[in-house]
Amino acid sequence: MSDLQLLGKKAKAAAVETALYSAEKKKNILLAMAKILRQQTDKILKANKEDLDRAVQNQMAPSLQDRLKLDEKRIESMAVALEEIAQDTDPLGQEMERIIRPNGLLIRKVRVPIGVIGVIYEARPNVTSDVAGLCLKAGNAVVLRGGKEAFSSNQAITELLRQALREEDANEDSVQLVTDLSRESAVGMMQMTDYLDLLIPRGGAGLIRTVVRESRVPVIQTGEGNCHLYVDRAADLSMAVSILENAKVSRPSVCNACESLLVHKEIAETFLPKAAEMLAKNGVQVFACERALPFLPQAELATESDFAAEYLDLKLSVKVVDSLEEAVSHIRRYGTHHSEAIITSDPLSAAKFQKEVDAAAVYWNASTRFTDGGEFGFGGEIGISTQKLHARGPMGILALTSYQYQIDGNGQIR
Amino acid sequence: MSDLQLLGKKAKAAAVETALYSAEKKKNILLAMAKILRQQTDKILKANKEDLDRAVQNQMAPSLQDRLKLDEKRIESMAVALEEIAQDTDPLGQEMERIIRPNGLLIRKVRVPIGVIGVIYEARPNVTSDVAGLCLKAGNAVVLRGGKEAFSSNQAITELLRQALREEDANEDSVQLVTDLSRESAVGMMQMTDYLDLLIPRGGAGLIRTVVRESRVPVIQTGEGNCHLYVDRAADLSMAVSILENAKVSRPSVCNACESLLVHKEIAETFLPKAAEMLAKNGVQVFACERALPFLPQAELATESDFAAEYLDLKLSVKVVDSLEEAVSHIRRYGTHHSEAIITSDPLSAAKFQKEVDAAAVYWNASTRFTDGGEFGFGGEIGISTQKLHARGPMGILALTSYQYQIDGNGQIR
Repeated sequence: MSDLQLLGKKAKAAAVETALYSAEKKKNILLAMAKILRQQTDKILKANKEDLDRAVQNQMAPSLQDRLKLDEKRIESMAVALEEIAQDTDPLGQEMERIIRPNGLLIRKVRVPIGVIGVIYEARPNVTSDVAGLCLKAGNAVVLRGGKEAFSSNQAITELLRQALREEDANEDSVQLVTDLSRESAVGMMQMTDYLDLLIPRGGAGLIRTVVRESRVPVIQTGEGNCHLYVDRAADLSMAVSILENAKVSRPSVCNACESLLVHKEIAETFLPKAAEMLAKNGVQVFACERALPFLPQAELATESDFAAEYLDLKLSVKVVDSLEEAVSHIRRYGTHHSEAIITSDPLSAAKFQKEVDAAAVYWNASTRFTDGGEFGFGGEIGISTQKLHARGPMGILALTSYQYQIDGNGQIR
Repeated sequence: MSDLQLLGKKAKAAAVETALYSAEKKKNILLAMAKILRQQTDKILKANKEDLDRAVQNQMAPSLQDRLKLDEKRIESMAVALEEIAQDTDPLGQEMERIIRPNGLLIRKVRVPIGVIGVIYEARPNVTSDVAGLCLKAGNAVVLRGGKEAFSSNQAITELLRQALREEDANEDSVQLVTDLSRESAVGMMQMTDYLDLLIPRGGAGLIRTVVRESRVPVIQTGEGNCHLYVDRAADLSMAVSILENAKVSRPSVCNACESLLVHKEIAETFLPKAAEMLAKNGVQVFACERALPFLPQAELATESDFAAEYLDLKLSVKVVDSLEEAVSHIRRYGTHHSEAIITSDPLSAAKFQKEVDAAAVYWNASTRFTDGGEFGFGGEIGISTQKLHARGPMGILALTSYQYQIDGNGQIR
């Protein structure tokens, strides 16, 4: 049995115990985890320093170094996140539905854990404690596989989380880190149907596509976002500029940022110059269709690949459309089913857009940046699902649960 | 573009329309489908005759020929099933949840279709109309791939369903049948991530395992059932015999039939002879552990493979256990997460068993045979999920839906 198989086997055994922990016990574990992260901040920072030194040696881009870097404030946030999860309602055992059948059978649909959840993620080391906390709260064991850039940090954090589990007389194998980060071990994880119930990739489009393509373990596809903002002919134009600015500029590297602007032809002439001014001020590079170009002095001509691009950068594609229908069909062609928005004062247009656009979150007069577990009030999130099975959109604790039917009878036969 | 790709592309286009059909329109289509099956019964019987003639030529087993055979009564049942689906509540557009955020955003979680659903199934031709009806009701397009044994019947039924769609001015490509039944086309279907949103295999364990292993399209695993009946020390023994008889004998070839009996050691001596009598009367062959053998005169010694077997036949494995805990851990080892039952008069034992057994349906004092969409009151069912993602247990219309978040604001930015 390989190390990875052994780790999977331990996780499966731990999951049986974790599923039965009381709400109180899980709360105590999560609080102990938060406490130990605070107490051992120095230990985490020391490990993080090793990762950062390696990053400098390897000439990692400064923006990636920033994602990797931990400081006291960031570790404090990790602890606070665990405390918030601790205070959330325990999801397990909730009766989701109750059916009484004519034959007297009582059928209860009851929330249960999924089992063992594997998470493959990239740079940020805070994901380690966030994901472990959410999985544990939902009664699952977790197998973490972070990026090699953050290896020392992830190892230090995981060791502390496991120490907290031991202190609370819980099975430390509820939280495990894969230490062999070879290509083979990634493939091995994707084949581990005996031990993993679910695999969640968090990271760039390349990682996600590889996992979706190669995994035999059920996967939830997360995160790719080619998000559109459609400014309808009946839009409040200053609201449209403000929302565009927020959606494009506030954090261009995230999946819920706006990548493409669609503008109704009747307002192109008045709206686009206002948008151009705001975009120029923020240093956004613009790629526009032929009809939009005349109103966007600094824009270049867009190609097909611009409309398909998730830039994750201060770049924006712009297209003038003849109608709401054309906006919807453009989104159908280029969208990634993540977040889409319409700006309009016409409630019928808004309703039509929301009904016909096939995305996890469809906004009327609000920024796409709100697609986020915290902003939806879910507490933390484990990712944003862009598929339709099991969970869609921001995935909070409930997305990490399943259900079973418990049926009570008094001798019924069929 | 291959024929299969073309079919997928048509299905995707049809799904966009199907998703937006009104409840009224879908009801009319389903009623038209029922009507045309009744009117054209002769056409279906003629096609079915071709399948049956081929079956005789190929010396198909009589039990399989019976599954394949249609008659007026069975076609009437297919029509009635479509009428029942027509009368069910339309699931789409239902507001499942409503969240108002402190910033004033109104977040509605609204039920939507999945898109295009592929179903790979074996012998029974009634599956063709049942599955098409359920998928359509939930606003989905469906790509059907029935077994080659039922090819002529499936083709006749599909053609009639498509005729009903045309008559109701609906897109006939909402229901399509794959006519190339080669191994290559099966593989092609499992790779068709551009066009299929979900693949459901219905059939034997071999088919299901192949699809789960090879599919890149998300799969829902259905149907394998190594179901246990555990008779606790506090059981009403005559109830236990009656439930065992129903669970084992009433229809041994189905996935919710009982395959294995676990008996608490304290009642083995009194219960097993009663069980033996009933089993002998019904011609059930018994494979028992060493401790059970003395009380089961006609039994053979069970091997490891007996406890792992889904017999789907008049066969039963029997094991004496020391405790409820041993029963639970035996089920953890050999069960397939389908349906499990405890017979006991002790509510605490029942609660412990239901909480600790990891299966879609866990019964207290009732037969495992109730795991069925109809018996749960779901109307029809598309299969019984034995996995934990998306849907678990009997899958009715709601299991064929997803959701999206529709968010209304008045200019909110983050």
